[in-house]
Amino acid sequence: MKDRKLLMIPGPIEFTPAVMRAMGMPTASHVAPNFIEVFGQALERLRQVFLCPAGQPFVVAGSGTLAMEMAAANLIEPGDRALVVNTGVFGDRFGVILERFGAEVTQVCAPAIGDAPAIEEVEAVLQSGDFKLMTITHVDTSTAVAADVKSLAALGQQYGVLVVVDGVCAVAGEEMRQEKWGIDLAITASQKAIGVPPGLALIVAGPRAMETYRQRDRPAGSFYADWEQWLPIMEAYEARRPSYFGTPPVNLVWALNVSLAQILAEGIGARFARHQRVSRAVKSAVAALGLEEVPVSPERGAVTLTAPYYPDGVDSALLGHIGSAGVILAGGLHPAIKDRYFRIGHMGAVNESDVMATVGAIETGLILAGCEIEPGTGLAAAQAALAKPA
Amino acid sequence: MKDRKLLMIPGPIEFTPAVMRAMGMPTASHVAPNFIEVFGQALERLRQVFLCPAGQPFVVAGSGTLAMEMAAANLIEPGDRALVVNTGVFGDRFGVILERFGAEVTQVCAPAIGDAPAIEEVEAVLQSGDFKLMTITHVDTSTAVAADVKSLAALGQQYGVLVVVDGVCAVAGEEMRQEKWGIDLAITASQKAIGVPPGLALIVAGPRAMETYRQRDRPAGSFYADWEQWLPIMEAYEARRPSYFGTPPVNLVWALNVSLAQILAEGIGARFARHQRVSRAVKSAVAALGLEEVPVSPERGAVTLTAPYYPDGVDSALLGHIGSAGVILAGGLHPAIKDRYFRIGHMGAVNESDVMATVGAIETGLILAGCEIEPGTGLAAAQAALAKPA
Repeated sequence: MKDRKLLMIPGPIEFTPAVMRAMGMPTASHVAPNFIEVFGQALERLRQVFLCPAGQPFVVAGSGTLAMEMAAANLIEPGDRALVVNTGVFGDRFGVILERFGAEVTQVCAPAIGDAPAIEEVEAVLQSGDFKLMTITHVDTSTAVAADVKSLAALGQQYGVLVVVDGVCAVAGEEMRQEKWGIDLAITASQKAIGVPPGLALIVAGPRAMETYRQRDRPAGSFYADWEQWLPIMEAYEARRPSYFGTPPVNLVWALNVSLAQILAEGIGARFARHQRVSRAVKSAVAALGLEEVPVSPERGAVTLTAPYYPDGVDSALLGHIGSAGVILAGGLHPAIKDRYFRIGHMGAVNESDVMATVGAIETGLILAGCEIEPGTGLAAAQAALAKPA
Repeated sequence: MKDRKLLMIPGPIEFTPAVMRAMGMPTASHVAPNFIEVFGQALERLRQVFLCPAGQPFVVAGSGTLAMEMAAANLIEPGDRALVVNTGVFGDRFGVILERFGAEVTQVCAPAIGDAPAIEEVEAVLQSGDFKLMTITHVDTSTAVAADVKSLAALGQQYGVLVVVDGVCAVAGEEMRQEKWGIDLAITASQKAIGVPPGLALIVAGPRAMETYRQRDRPAGSFYADWEQWLPIMEAYEARRPSYFGTPPVNLVWALNVSLAQILAEGIGARFARHQRVSRAVKSAVAALGLEEVPVSPERGAVTLTAPYYPDGVDSALLGHIGSAGVILAGGLHPAIKDRYFRIGHMGAVNESDVMATVGAIETGLILAGCEIEPGTGLAAAQAALAKPA
């Protein structure tokens, strides 16, 4: 009996064998020629995966929150106004971080949990004030709501504000075309759809973001997050020159380069389509089993994860039952509804077998929790969705 | 033929097979019971390795510089005075970081590169002003100078300042007894003597440091470095409760726990003695080969690394020759003498075989660089040193 359960949470996800081999490789010197080549390739590939040919990539040891801090620390000066398009707790967090670096923050909040602010409302706020920057959480992991990044970014460009996308639960899973859509800065963290164990903050900054940074009057409020330190390092690795500021997380960077190569080999378009297909299958199964989702409508729902409410009379003990059937899912994260829903991550290397295993375990778990469902209902719905042409 | 060279630089170092297996293990959920247990153990063990039973440990994704930033961001408020005992570029760096968070910094510098400020000079400066905090770089990796942490910490306690030790190239290699010596906060990074691939910032804060943090008037200048976020997380893992702020770097934390267990199994005292024995052997070999060291006297020299000047007529091409003989060493780091010296790291899992391989490669490299040395001179000196009782 394998002693390991399938990990279907919204990060860390299941990583590919090649990525894990890179994690376990003897660690190279951070200035060894082979590692310089690997880091240089990873930076080039990051730009391709973010679809931002003119962007400046940053790869730094940290969590996704460090990537948010880098955006705020380098783009905000005290007194700047920032607009946060808020679809959950990660919008709240971005607001706090922006304020920490001196921004005056206006939150444009969703009318209800599971919803997103109307684009007209965001536009009205943009018209009302002189904003330097707006942030959009592509997928808020706490609500499984996906923002309409394409339309919001276009709006931001129209009003001349810097568009910052928190793509932590999205990049390389949800469709995002950074340069084409007018996104000035996008971030993610390694353990999500980009497919590398946790420990890397990842950023691609477009030309307008870099120009804003270069025209700062004062240094960034943080030293560790300051691009002043990191920009020469990223430029050196990309030029295949040795350099040093802080020792890079060698094994994670090596694993990142492996994963980015796998993503580009699959093809970004094919990868987006695979994520949509898997997501449709999971959501069809959830619906067939009679579970409601947190997002108020299918249009609001993320591709990378699904957040169903527990059925009546069932609580988080369900996750234990699903776990005993072999699959690990995540509990709720949004404080207002934390104990009323759960979360299924399906991104990165996820495949059809993972979908069937997950839906099967959810059915078993529901039955163990006392729900009266017909075994196979969810599985049949998932199969039917997978069989449909894209 | 093995395709790998021995990595003898001052970090990343050679890691043990068990640590690397943890790096390559399938990644667990950050709230899985087995990972919670591992993280909890790692925190408990960190306290033991720092010899600080009453300390509060922090384990966060980042480089050693993030650990320095955490010290500054949480302990400094604008206008506080800080004293930096400067023995190289990492003293310079700590000064810049402290200033970034509003400190007025007084640098007490070594009279020459390779030296350390006299303790009387540090005392005179402490007498002259109302300092909140002093920093000491235990081993400045740029000069291989070790500060007299025990005496300096005692002085700091005498004058009622917080004593902060940058132990990045020292902890678990150089003798440091945090609580007994009166060190209020000590930091390190994973890729040094503590024996884990790069990517973790490690801190143990004593009761006076935590009290200073609790009495802050305003929040820390950085959000990612703010203990407000991390303290409840560390407390939760240690109490074996699930919690979340930013996704921890699961594989690195797992590897840390493995390495800390190995360190404690060896015994801290035995580990310090092994590092001293290995260091004496390398330094004896270097002296026998006629190379001068950057530290101005043996008392100033670090245990964890050795920094010899190139002999006359030899430049950094020597490192290529040593590399072709199978061992990777590091070039200079201090800008004033960067091209005049090199660095040999010997910490963590380092053993006698590594010493002989390294000294042998240095001899071969010197001969290839045209030096007239008698082959075996350094090796014989290293052997003799290793044979001596401690």
